[in-house]
Amino acid sequence: MRMKRALITLWLVLSAAAPARAEDGYDLWLRYRPVTDAARLAEYRAAVTQLVVDGDSPTLRAARDELRTGLRGLLGADVPLSASATRDGAVIVGTPASSRTIGALGLGDALRAVGREGYVVRATRVGGRRAIVVAANSDVGALYGAFRFLRQLQTYGTLANLAVASAPKIQLRLLNHWDNLNRSVERGYAGHSLWAWDTLPDASNPRYRDYARANASIGINGAVLTNVNANARILTPEYLAKVAALANVFRPYGVRVYLTARFSAPIEIGGLKTADPLDPAVRAWWKAKIDSIYALIPDFGGFTVKANSEGQPGPQDYHRTHADGANMFAEALAPHGGVVMWRAFVYSNEVPVDRVKQAYTEFKPLDGQFRDNAFVQVKNGPLDFQPREPFSPLFGAMPKTPLMMEFQVTKEYLGQDTHLVYLGQEFEEVLRSDTWAKGKGSTVAKVIDGSLHGYARTGIAGVSNIGDDRNWTGSQFNQANWYAYGRLAWDPEMSASDIADDWLRMTFTNDPSFVRAVKAMMKTSREAVVNYMTPLGLAHIMATGHHYGPGPWVGGPNTRMRADQTPTYFHRADSLGLGFDRTATGSNALEQYAPPIRARWGNQRTVPDSVLLWFHHVGWTERLPATHGRPLWDELVARYNAGVDSVRAMQRTWDAQRGKVDDERFRDVQSFLAIQEKEARWWRDAALTYFQSFSHLPIPARYEQPAHPLQYYLQVRCPANRDKPRCDNVP
Amino acid sequence: MRMKRALITLWLVLSAAAPARAEDGYDLWLRYRPVTDAARLAEYRAAVTQLVVDGDSPTLRAARDELRTGLRGLLGADVPLSASATRDGAVIVGTPASSRTIGALGLGDALRAVGREGYVVRATRVGGRRAIVVAANSDVGALYGAFRFLRQLQTYGTLANLAVASAPKIQLRLLNHWDNLNRSVERGYAGHSLWAWDTLPDASNPRYRDYARANASIGINGAVLTNVNANARILTPEYLAKVAALANVFRPYGVRVYLTARFSAPIEIGGLKTADPLDPAVRAWWKAKIDSIYALIPDFGGFTVKANSEGQPGPQDYHRTHADGANMFAEALAPHGGVVMWRAFVYSNEVPVDRVKQAYTEFKPLDGQFRDNAFVQVKNGPLDFQPREPFSPLFGAMPKTPLMMEFQVTKEYLGQDTHLVYLGQEFEEVLRSDTWAKGKGSTVAKVIDGSLHGYARTGIAGVSNIGDDRNWTGSQFNQANWYAYGRLAWDPEMSASDIADDWLRMTFTNDPSFVRAVKAMMKTSREAVVNYMTPLGLAHIMATGHHYGPGPWVGGPNTRMRADQTPTYFHRADSLGLGFDRTATGSNALEQYAPPIRARWGNQRTVPDSVLLWFHHVGWTERLPATHGRPLWDELVARYNAGVDSVRAMQRTWDAQRGKVDDERFRDVQSFLAIQEKEARWWRDAALTYFQSFSHLPIPARYEQPAHPLQYYLQVRCPANRDKPRCDNVP
Repeated sequence: MRMKRALITLWLVLSAAAPARAEDGYDLWLRYRPVTDAARLAEYRAAVTQLVVDGDSPTLRAARDELRTGLRGLLGADVPLSASATRDGAVIVGTPASSRTIGALGLGDALRAVGREGYVVRATRVGGRRAIVVAANSDVGALYGAFRFLRQLQTYGTLANLAVASAPKIQLRLLNHWDNLNRSVERGYAGHSLWAWDTLPDASNPRYRDYARANASIGINGAVLTNVNANARILTPEYLAKVAALANVFRPYGVRVYLTARFSAPIEIGGLKTADPLDPAVRAWWKAKIDSIYALIPDFGGFTVKANSEGQPGPQDYHRTHADGANMFAEALAPHGGVVMWRAFVYSNEVPVDRVKQAYTEFKPLDGQFRDNAFVQVKNGPLDFQPREPFSPLFGAMPKTPLMMEFQVTKEYLGQDTHLVYLGQEFEEVLRSDTWAKGKGSTVAKVIDGSLHGYARTGIAGVSNIGDDRNWTGSQFNQANWYAYGRLAWDPEMSASDIADDWLRMTFTNDPSFVRAVKAMMKTSREAVVNYMTPLGLAHIMATGHHYGPGPWVGGPNTRMRADQTPTYFHRADSLGLGFDRTATGSNALEQYAPPIRARWGNQRTVPDSVLLWFHHVGWTERLPATHGRPLWDELVARYNAGVDSVRAMQRTWDAQRGKVDDERFRDVQSFLAIQEKEARWWRDAALTYFQSFSHLPIPARYEQPAHPLQYYLQVRCPANRDKPRCDNVP
Repeated sequence: MRMKRALITLWLVLSAAAPARAEDGYDLWLRYRPVTDAARLAEYRAAVTQLVVDGDSPTLRAARDELRTGLRGLLGADVPLSASATRDGAVIVGTPASSRTIGALGLGDALRAVGREGYVVRATRVGGRRAIVVAANSDVGALYGAFRFLRQLQTYGTLANLAVASAPKIQLRLLNHWDNLNRSVERGYAGHSLWAWDTLPDASNPRYRDYARANASIGINGAVLTNVNANARILTPEYLAKVAALANVFRPYGVRVYLTARFSAPIEIGGLKTADPLDPAVRAWWKAKIDSIYALIPDFGGFTVKANSEGQPGPQDYHRTHADGANMFAEALAPHGGVVMWRAFVYSNEVPVDRVKQAYTEFKPLDGQFRDNAFVQVKNGPLDFQPREPFSPLFGAMPKTPLMMEFQVTKEYLGQDTHLVYLGQEFEEVLRSDTWAKGKGSTVAKVIDGSLHGYARTGIAGVSNIGDDRNWTGSQFNQANWYAYGRLAWDPEMSASDIADDWLRMTFTNDPSFVRAVKAMMKTSREAVVNYMTPLGLAHIMATGHHYGPGPWVGGPNTRMRADQTPTYFHRADSLGLGFDRTATGSNALEQYAPPIRARWGNQRTVPDSVLLWFHHVGWTERLPATHGRPLWDELVARYNAGVDSVRAMQRTWDAQRGKVDDERFRDVQSFLAIQEKEARWWRDAALTYFQSFSHLPIPARYEQPAHPLQYYLQVRCPANRDKPRCDNVP
């Protein structure tokens, strides 16, 4: 009786001791909440009774700490550390070098197959006792393995006969932070930059470590800290000391730091009169600068460079080529093992015939001219991170140059912080696109993972959506895009749907009804935004500058912008029809693709609806297979309405999850979906009333009619907010 | 045995269930961690066994929720709710109107004495059983009482014979947020504005409520949401809907919302041709606008107005007086119970003989011309929130006009986010200053609490240091300034030291050795910053614009700034000496003070060292009582060095607390102190080498010599960061 009372008291004391904090999203997918499935919990408790981490490097300590924290949370009990496996249920973590136990397990072949960063996680026996071994060839491999093991528990997977081996298919898996030194983030919608340059290097911040943890948990192994529109000051000794402080925090988690190099830095901070990449003094300056960086940061990764694009300085200022510029950096970085990533996103000073042809035109001739440690980094599409674009033709065009993929994880053109859009679907679509570079099956994934052309070096970059907002990414569901990017960087052939499954279980709950419904919602979310913003291959009809909200009417001679940055340039609406003729009768951008693609996309009878208006100017009443045989106008109306309907369906799906997730995040998501529904209507009605001014066709009565006349939408003002614009009088 | 095992398992499960989060400061002084003093814990558990909250208003629900959360954390057990006191240990909360029990307790006299917002908390007997009653005349009084009761436990005070009665001495206790609609914060050093205008009113954020809770816990009852440099858009229907959403969250916590009114709004958003306050159309526009605000927000508080200052529009643009302007608002607000707070901080378009005389010169003649519901809001000193100033002479000069105090809680001129400066000492110094307006004892506190002149309305405003940084205020110790401001607003005669005591116990730990040492550190911190920045009555020698770091050399004809915003204007260093002669032989600003003050401060033999150079130009080698008989130069050197020494002593004190507080906040504070020490040296060396260029006197060898020549300090660049400037090459 006394005992029972004590028990109850204890329950009360402990269950109440720490006032519960609101679920604010800070923990991301590393929440480690108690396992609520009793059978699984029993299985896990039996299978995990002690933790053996041989070795004491910072990275193995990180693995050990993560396992302790994670298992404590998941199992509801501290799993004791042990020097060796003394009973059934040991989890043994390490490398053959760090651990004699692991060395003795005969994992040689298995480990050879997973390379430097891969891991093997398997149920086995050690000295006759049941054990789970997390083995790798490097400490960071062991850390990745630890996260993989935890994921097994987080997603309520069985540990019986556990046998997982995994290795990344891409070597450099980077986040690109477009973060400025004043802590603003270009195209960032989640607060300030995480990097508190003002208090670095003196003060640290627990977020630096949590950022590195989150990255390591999905295999991201590098961070370009600064904006591609670069500031030379980052290369001054004062700032490099700050960079070194961050590198020190990230290092145990396998995350190397990279910077952006401003091409004109030798002039701006070096006192030189030129930045000509073939000038010996310039080359000497960069070499000395790079040597000084490595003196501070021995594992510094290298540079991302945006040059001769959107007004940035570059080698063309000195009549040199992009390869000349890249090779200058590559040469100075090579002795240290660093790389240069040269962006193919170029905007020359003249308005081209067709904006989307430019990267190919400039870079294709340079194939083979880049040094070994130089990448060309190519955006997924030929334009600029639209809701949907065809893949960039460069992926099929540079067999002798390692190409890096550049995805945009931050949703610059896709509703920014508030709209729920799961980008996993978009990334997957791009990676699975077939370039036909070496015949059928030459997918973009195989190009960038090096298997198609035998690249010695491989890389991928995602433009980060991370800021200092409490939930890191501006909304709960934007976290999924960080997560999906990391998982696909590790394995570009993974299924976006499976990734969403893992993410939902780890981030919200393993409740199967929740996972099923919300995963389906995520999967439709990308098609929804395409439909209510830019259906049928439309692109870049967002309001200019901030890219938030519709602005298809912007353009023409009275606009003080270059034509190829305005919507009217891209959609080409006129009294006859809509769309950009990029076939041979038009700009012939199509010729940049392989013949089988040209044949299919160039023919109005075979072009898929997804790129119809990207490649064709189609008459308002034309009926095509891509319009399901309906007149284009009717199909356009149907698509815009389908986009709005999808958002409403997402709302209904989410509303049905009440009680399955915490109230805080439930309401958070719910209120953002309400904003999205309102803005999807705004998009639909603004775009349709605008296009209607050309088509002069009615919106069939079975659809919701626009809430206002076109004039109303023209007058919606969207002042640029600090991070994100918000528009007045959105209907 | 089985039971014992179950007990142990339970302990393990529960103590580990939620992975511990880093102590990041989010919880402020409302941490409610378990009571670790066993005797006190036993006392509290015996005294607190059930919770009786009669009534179900939103405010009483807030009180009940706070008590449940707080007691669960402190006592480690849920305290059950009960409809009535059924055993010893009930805590009974309510008003005579909400609770028959309280009505029957005979508290009539006690409650009458504490007014609308006050409370009575006392140990008593109800139906023969021991109980603690938290009683008030209003629901918000009961909420304040609940926080007061929790504070008793948080600070490990006894509950035996508990008998507390308290009422605020000032009616309006406001925070002024200088927050812009783009979420930047003028003079904010803690991230973005809390108000997410972009997602309001659709989305809420748990921080809105936590902000209101924190304010209620210290008695703050109003928030002016917007910058005094106002944007008229806040008065559009779209933004007013957002304001109303915030007001709805704050209302249960007794926090009313106020806005800033841009004087020219009738032109900018009203389509009128004038904003002349005597123009009938203008008056009608404001009346209609104000009526529309109250339709949305029935308890809207009113407006703060900055007019004809630093380029802001105002009534003088139409040859009207400040009183004309204020009365226009007051008249329109009066039917709704609203007030206008008219700032006396004015900067006319001409450079005055002496900047510090201006507010008095402009406002003194208007005394008695303001309507009943108009305040004049006066900064604590005549200049602008310096580390030290004499009190503003207006406090002794407007007996017929209710004056509000304006303190700056954000440390614009005092090291901003990083320097540890406890402003409680500064606020106390100002409030205890004697104006002599009605003879000895006419303290500033008695002016603003209305007791000296019998003001019917009283108010106080603190310029907020709050932003969306996780710790709210940019540093852990900046939280103390929010806290101290609130407590002093409730009772301007409280001791800053006692407030620091409470704050430390609630925020960190009740460990007596910690509280003693750190409280002493906090108390010396303000004098430290005065010494290393502006000792002996110096002022405004910060670098211009961002006000961070030393810039005593800025000024003179080559500066493109008005003279009265530059350091050389204020310090008046020349070959003879240092300081601004504000006696009858100079600007005679001294004449704005009462005769006994004039006599003391005007005489070099009796002036206190704190305002020596504020009122006197003193020769470099003059020896005065205020310089302890040393030559001025020697005293100046001694003071600057004492400032640095104090910071080092603060570092030692803090270092000795390792282990007494959590590691996260320990390191956080430690690293900021390291920055402060470095910057204190920078201040000292920059100021002394600069002043030395006038005095041509050596720095005695017993002191640290400047690290660099003056030329070095002149070249330190401090680019304006987004929120805060940080300077390159700080020595």
